[in-house]
Amino acid sequence: MEDFRLETDLLGELQVPANAYYGVQTQRAVNNFKISNHKLSDYKEFIRALGIVKLGAAKANFKLGLLSEDIYKAIEFGSNELIQGNYFDEFPVDMIQGGAGTSVNMNANEVIANLGLEFLGKAKGDYTFCSPNDHVNLSQSTNDAYPTALKLALFDMNKQLVFALEKLFFAFDKKAGEFHHLIKMGRTQLQDAVPMTLGQEFEAFAITLKKEIIALRRVSLSFLETNMGATAIGTGLNAAPGYAELCTKEIAELLNEPVVLAENLVEATSDTSAFVEYSGALKKLSIKLSKICNDLRLLASGPRAGLFEINLPPKQPGSSIMPGKVNPVIPEVVNQVCFKVIGNDLTVAFAAEAGQLQLNVMEPIIGFSIMESMQYLTNAMDTLRKECIDDITANAEHLKNEVQNSIGIVTALNPHIGYKASTKIAKQALETGESVYQLVLDQNLLSKEQLDEILDPKNMVGPL
Amino acid sequence: MEDFRLETDLLGELQVPANAYYGVQTQRAVNNFKISNHKLSDYKEFIRALGIVKLGAAKANFKLGLLSEDIYKAIEFGSNELIQGNYFDEFPVDMIQGGAGTSVNMNANEVIANLGLEFLGKAKGDYTFCSPNDHVNLSQSTNDAYPTALKLALFDMNKQLVFALEKLFFAFDKKAGEFHHLIKMGRTQLQDAVPMTLGQEFEAFAITLKKEIIALRRVSLSFLETNMGATAIGTGLNAAPGYAELCTKEIAELLNEPVVLAENLVEATSDTSAFVEYSGALKKLSIKLSKICNDLRLLASGPRAGLFEINLPPKQPGSSIMPGKVNPVIPEVVNQVCFKVIGNDLTVAFAAEAGQLQLNVMEPIIGFSIMESMQYLTNAMDTLRKECIDDITANAEHLKNEVQNSIGIVTALNPHIGYKASTKIAKQALETGESVYQLVLDQNLLSKEQLDEILDPKNMVGPL
Amino acid sequence: MEDFRLETDLLGELQVPANAYYGVQTQRAVNNFKISNHKLSDYKEFIRALGIVKLGAAKANFKLGLLSEDIYKAIEFGSNELIQGNYFDEFPVDMIQGGAGTSVNMNANEVIANLGLEFLGKAKGDYTFCSPNDHVNLSQSTNDAYPTALKLALFDMNKQLVFALEKLFFAFDKKAGEFHHLIKMGRTQLQDAVPMTLGQEFEAFAITLKKEIIALRRVSLSFLETNMGATAIGTGLNAAPGYAELCTKEIAELLNEPVVLAENLVEATSDTSAFVEYSGALKKLSIKLSKICNDLRLLASGPRAGLFEINLPPKQPGSSIMPGKVNPVIPEVVNQVCFKVIGNDLTVAFAAEAGQLQLNVMEPIIGFSIMESMQYLTNAMDTLRKECIDDITANAEHLKNEVQNSIGIVTALNPHIGYKASTKIAKQALETGESVYQLVLDQNLLSKEQLDEILDPKNMVGPL
Amino acid sequence: MEDFRLETDLLGELQVPANAYYGVQTQRAVNNFKISNHKLSDYKEFIRALGIVKLGAAKANFKLGLLSEDIYKAIEFGSNELIQGNYFDEFPVDMIQGGAGTSVNMNANEVIANLGLEFLGKAKGDYTFCSPNDHVNLSQSTNDAYPTALKLALFDMNKQLVFALEKLFFAFDKKAGEFHHLIKMGRTQLQDAVPMTLGQEFEAFAITLKKEIIALRRVSLSFLETNMGATAIGTGLNAAPGYAELCTKEIAELLNEPVVLAENLVEATSDTSAFVEYSGALKKLSIKLSKICNDLRLLASGPRAGLFEINLPPKQPGSSIMPGKVNPVIPEVVNQVCFKVIGNDLTVAFAAEAGQLQLNVMEPIIGFSIMESMQYLTNAMDTLRKECIDDITANAEHLKNEVQNSIGIVTALNPHIGYKASTKIAKQALETGESVYQLVLDQNLLSKEQLDEILDPKNMVGPL
Repeated sequence: MEDFRLETDLLGELQVPANAYYGVQTQRAVNNFKISNHKLSDYKEFIRALGIVKLGAAKANFKLGLLSEDIYKAIEFGSNELIQGNYFDEFPVDMIQGGAGTSVNMNANEVIANLGLEFLGKAKGDYTFCSPNDHVNLSQSTNDAYPTALKLALFDMNKQLVFALEKLFFAFDKKAGEFHHLIKMGRTQLQDAVPMTLGQEFEAFAITLKKEIIALRRVSLSFLETNMGATAIGTGLNAAPGYAELCTKEIAELLNEPVVLAENLVEATSDTSAFVEYSGALKKLSIKLSKICNDLRLLASGPRAGLFEINLPPKQPGSSIMPGKVNPVIPEVVNQVCFKVIGNDLTVAFAAEAGQLQLNVMEPIIGFSIMESMQYLTNAMDTLRKECIDDITANAEHLKNEVQNSIGIVTALNPHIGYKASTKIAKQALETGESVYQLVLDQNLLSKEQLDEILDPKNMVGPL
Repeated sequence: MEDFRLETDLLGELQVPANAYYGVQTQRAVNNFKISNHKLSDYKEFIRALGIVKLGAAKANFKLGLLSEDIYKAIEFGSNELIQGNYFDEFPVDMIQGGAGTSVNMNANEVIANLGLEFLGKAKGDYTFCSPNDHVNLSQSTNDAYPTALKLALFDMNKQLVFALEKLFFAFDKKAGEFHHLIKMGRTQLQDAVPMTLGQEFEAFAITLKKEIIALRRVSLSFLETNMGATAIGTGLNAAPGYAELCTKEIAELLNEPVVLAENLVEATSDTSAFVEYSGALKKLSIKLSKICNDLRLLASGPRAGLFEINLPPKQPGSSIMPGKVNPVIPEVVNQVCFKVIGNDLTVAFAAEAGQLQLNVMEPIIGFSIMESMQYLTNAMDTLRKECIDDITANAEHLKNEVQNSIGIVTALNPHIGYKASTKIAKQALETGESVYQLVLDQNLLSKEQLDEILDPKNMVGPL
Repeated sequence: MEDFRLETDLLGELQVPANAYYGVQTQRAVNNFKISNHKLSDYKEFIRALGIVKLGAAKANFKLGLLSEDIYKAIEFGSNELIQGNYFDEFPVDMIQGGAGTSVNMNANEVIANLGLEFLGKAKGDYTFCSPNDHVNLSQSTNDAYPTALKLALFDMNKQLVFALEKLFFAFDKKAGEFHHLIKMGRTQLQDAVPMTLGQEFEAFAITLKKEIIALRRVSLSFLETNMGATAIGTGLNAAPGYAELCTKEIAELLNEPVVLAENLVEATSDTSAFVEYSGALKKLSIKLSKICNDLRLLASGPRAGLFEINLPPKQPGSSIMPGKVNPVIPEVVNQVCFKVIGNDLTVAFAAEAGQLQLNVMEPIIGFSIMESMQYLTNAMDTLRKECIDDITANAEHLKNEVQNSIGIVTALNPHIGYKASTKIAKQALETGESVYQLVLDQNLLSKEQLDEILDPKNMVGPL
Repeated sequence: MEDFRLETDLLGELQVPANAYYGVQTQRAVNNFKISNHKLSDYKEFIRALGIVKLGAAKANFKLGLLSEDIYKAIEFGSNELIQGNYFDEFPVDMIQGGAGTSVNMNANEVIANLGLEFLGKAKGDYTFCSPNDHVNLSQSTNDAYPTALKLALFDMNKQLVFALEKLFFAFDKKAGEFHHLIKMGRTQLQDAVPMTLGQEFEAFAITLKKEIIALRRVSLSFLETNMGATAIGTGLNAAPGYAELCTKEIAELLNEPVVLAENLVEATSDTSAFVEYSGALKKLSIKLSKICNDLRLLASGPRAGLFEINLPPKQPGSSIMPGKVNPVIPEVVNQVCFKVIGNDLTVAFAAEAGQLQLNVMEPIIGFSIMESMQYLTNAMDTLRKECIDDITANAEHLKNEVQNSIGIVTALNPHIGYKASTKIAKQALETGESVYQLVLDQNLLSKEQLDEILDPKNMVGPL
């Protein structure tokens, strides 16, 4: 037999499990929102951030004389439990929810209040001594506390994502060094172009990812802008003078990050552009990762009827019917994650556009979509690095032959015999199957010495 | 101490939990793909469909004399276990995976083989007697078995979704009847237009959803087109003559649905348009649901500074700071689900476009995205109906006053005094605040009797 | 010196060019909307459809005794001018406009009224004798006349698009026949799979496009559903009993197509799902076309360091620096058109979701986006066919060598030596560079006769 | 009779109009790409940028001793013509084209060469004296010259867009001042929340747009990163040592902007992230503009059955059937532009993801889509400001009544009587229709003096 206690709110009484730290409003949310089965409890960074926001607010309230020391201590205790990573299971609310985050905010308020009550030696639900609304939520509204906590959680998760990206960058960079001297044909529009090294190709992968490390760090800074003190709609109703600044300072100290107060709290309360921008940065990263994985799959195509330039490490048998077939399963899974991230970015766009008047009620789906994208991307980048990039090898002989057989090297003759004459040579090479080298020699367009110098691939790939 | 058995594949040996029914290839997939934490085991319809496909193939193989009775019986036993809903936990592969579904297909092959071995009194892993590749996968490839099972699973899930939609339709339809005689102002471009009934408004919601019932049923039929017999690329290599047709027939019988063989198996094997089309249908439904929820929130806006035409049932306190506030949390959560579905549809588009040559390797993310959309939508529609629509009430007095005060009713005068004169009346009404009725009377444009007839709202809303 | 006449509307007086057939409301729209520089006059199918709608309404009004013969004749004259393709320049309104199409509807009303006045021997602007609102727009609202005309225009444009698609289908089909006997390696996941013919590959392109011919024809039928008689919001205010049905019948006769009246006019007036569905069908076609063009570019990659299976006709020098380089410029331009169509489909989704209450005010951008997609796609398909597909050639020798060198043919051994033994052979082939044929022979796994039979590629590609 | 001259390229001879400055390759492009009817000639900033790039390259080549003074002078003359805005009509190439911009680059090369030939007193087409490839394109490839010119054009166009945005910001800011003292109800989730001023609401619009001014300026800086000297694939083949740096410097001087050379030219040549990022910034701006326009339409809803808080200036009669109706046509057209921009952003995403190996061949559609978005947005913002924002008025009396009637003001009682007691008051107010003020007084919860102080709306909206 399960045990219950009775709690009351605007809508009346409701049973809550007797030993639950959450209360009536959390229970209503659980009953109302049975959508995704992704619960707040799956997002530890979010719960931790809620603890920080609530503690920061309590500190400010206490210093402003709005909270008694007892109650402050109770809230501090409860908040710290969350910050330290305890009581995750007390956050059963579905991540996709109506109410603009009220259920998340009240879930935190209730858990902290009941932890505080326990700290004070009171019974759960005895909210006179420590109330979710009057004390834990003091000087706050969902509309400032929720987006602030969400942003801090994303800031935290971004660090993990960037760390995975950095490691991936280094993996590509290492391969670039390893493949430094392997000359191969570069390709534009899938047609043979001019020589380059495989190292240059991998260096380009590395560098293009490095740029996103910087970009994500920069963009994530806007998550450090808070609207605490805005309360319901940004006018700061019920927040004491000086509270907004003080609360911001307390949160900054708890987090040890340069958290700042928004320029205009009315604007900040309905604005979701920090999310839109960050989601766009994830999309940009995904576009790059997807392009790189497309390239890896193309370069590894074959083994006999493909480009066959590189070998991805075999990870599993590739076919239930074709013996010996091995497929580029790791880049493939990364491509798919990228497509999911791009889809999530669209979800964010729709949700952001749907904001109305003083609030954007669609923030829960925005937060959930971005968190999902971050988790998948972090996992995908770790997987790509460990299960693929680290063990890529090159088919050096094949790469060399490609260049020697190529017509594209004719480009190097332009400055010496002109575009028009070079074109003629290229055309003849294609039609006859002969080499550019031989044709130029046969037609006495350049001396053998000149040709050897000009057509030496090492001279074509730029400073090695 | 956990116990293992050793299995072997193309890449060598690997430990598999001793009591696992899955085998080496499933284990490799588990190791390779740690992405979303959504496992195949969460999608029971999918596992059931895999059972049906495998049994259908085995029946065809047996009838064609390609399988011994013993082995057929073993496969039949294993497949039936899946069909009956057992052994879900034996499907630990991440839903987001590389390899175009090979890991899913092999997971099913391995579980069925080991169940079959047990049936035959053999040890797990003793694949000579019942092999995942040579027997369970006989005449098949991932490239026909996987998409076929995926489609059958979606066909099954569509029935549940349509059922939720039907119930939602009836809920709106019932409200339409209930609100049949409540005359209110219709609005175009958010401006007062001409009178209608609240019943007409809800009837439009009902009917627009009803159309999607029909649409989804029709579109889902393309999931009944199979490419069994295509094997690797559609040429049917290693499938006996007649197998494709026979296997299709067996699956149709097992499922009791009109499953048909694709016109051209090469085309069918790389084509993902059934998924694109179905995802588009979910998007279309979501656009409608989102529009309806936008309307509900608008009509329920207020209570004192909004339209205040209808009342949504209160589900939870609306604010941590504003006492007494109640928000339209149910339509809000539905809006957000709709945005997720639209985002998933974009994921599907990217994945479908990324198909190359004889296969689309991105099918796992396509399947996963559509399944996610279906689950969320089904839940959202049930929630919308039960937690909102069923208990909507109308503010009849307010609706009536709106019409009586309106200028828009001037439209009804057009046929009597012309658009130009009507325009003048409307302008005067707006400027003076007077009623259209009084102005027309004052200016002797029509008699009181005529006016009473023309401006009777009941005459303006069409046949009631 | 330009000459003007003065016209009046709700907002007061405004100068209109003296010889313009359009009037004050068109002039206001021209002044208000300076956005895209794409004018209604660029879309002749739209203007023609407006003529048909206006004539259909006038015929119904006349038969119902609501219009005098004189005025009917005037409207008939004016409408027929539009139907016959005259006076396009009289439609200067920007395609991107506010007002839910009112400016388009009034532009048509005004031009027809003034043409009618001329027909009656009256001066332009002398609207007592033939009024844009009271006569041409009689029994109508923008909210029925505009979407009906838009749909009829799209129905018309779809025929042209489908015609281009049919011709493209035939081009692929012809190539499929031409390449019927060229055996090549099929590829899955960019890895060598099993043999097929180039004819099968092109046949798959043909068939997958053929399906879209059927799909587009089917989807376009929803453009034949009209809401004429709905007037402002679907309640039919100011439309006489029987008008809706009669008007629908007149339009059907003028168009000689099975135009039908919507089931529920309130629903139909705010619903945009016919547009969403059609745009989705264009997206689906684009996904297929883009995939095909990706394949063509891949198959034509090289000439020496690519797949080099087919040759696209050279259309222009490929590089300003690389002599002799020729690029697949035609598939490339088609890819880009496809991306634009997919982008436009998203625009349609946003616009459709933004509908509110009794109307979707965003229909102009919906119509414009779809029309743009149709024009681009029609042009792109004609270009693809004429400038590329018709002149593709194959590198038969190279295709044959691919198969002979391949490891993938080992798949055919499965039924004879089992998946495990085949895997071993495949592995050895990859490691040693030897042929599958030789390895099997050396190991006495099968006799030479058996091998010749089993590994004959012609036996691997299915019934030729 | 039209006159032609004969020119020759890789593919053979072709007729070019005798008096055309463009040559054979432009002519081929015109023949090949009949897609959008949007021509390069419509984008003057692009042609000007091409002139700058070509002149910068020529200056660098000349200083490095690679061009004779004669030929340099000829190229300088031709380039300057383009920079000065002449000869636009000589750029007839369709904006949607294959070839990764080769046709654009060659169009510029050819026009400059022929202008140069004329300057040298030579006949058009006599390319020995000034060759499009050997001289105008010297040390360049399409793959560096084209994206550089495209980026410079976008940088230029961004200035115009930002200027329109600045003016729009000031318009909102001015209204914020004008509405500074008008107290009204704020709304969250479309429900009455707490009081604010209309000035605060418009100030939030202003500030949120101001942030995008800064964002767009910052993001556009990445357009100043060039890959000149990369030539075909970034290896710099055929570019002399020092050329890349010198050319960058020359372009920076011509443009008087801090143009910089990319860190890694291989990476830069295939990377499109500057475009992706900028398009994302346009999307973000569009999301904000669309939200603002949604709000304006909502606040102006009515006149009698809507919120009726503000009045948008009437721009045109709103209905062909409803006399006196005026619609918010200007915000409506802006919404639609925003949806188009968001669609274009998706096109950019697809095109960016489609890059392969050393180049992204889809840059033409990327450039075209962004340019279209910029033009539409610039026009839309100018229209919104001039035709709407500047003339918005407020319904002050109505705003005041809203607040006096509201229940939401109960929130201000929280700190005095607690959340629970406040909730009770709110509930009673809603049920009885009584005012919060009266209920508190009746129940002796606070004295009249306290109440007057606490419930004075001016004290609720923050520091005025």
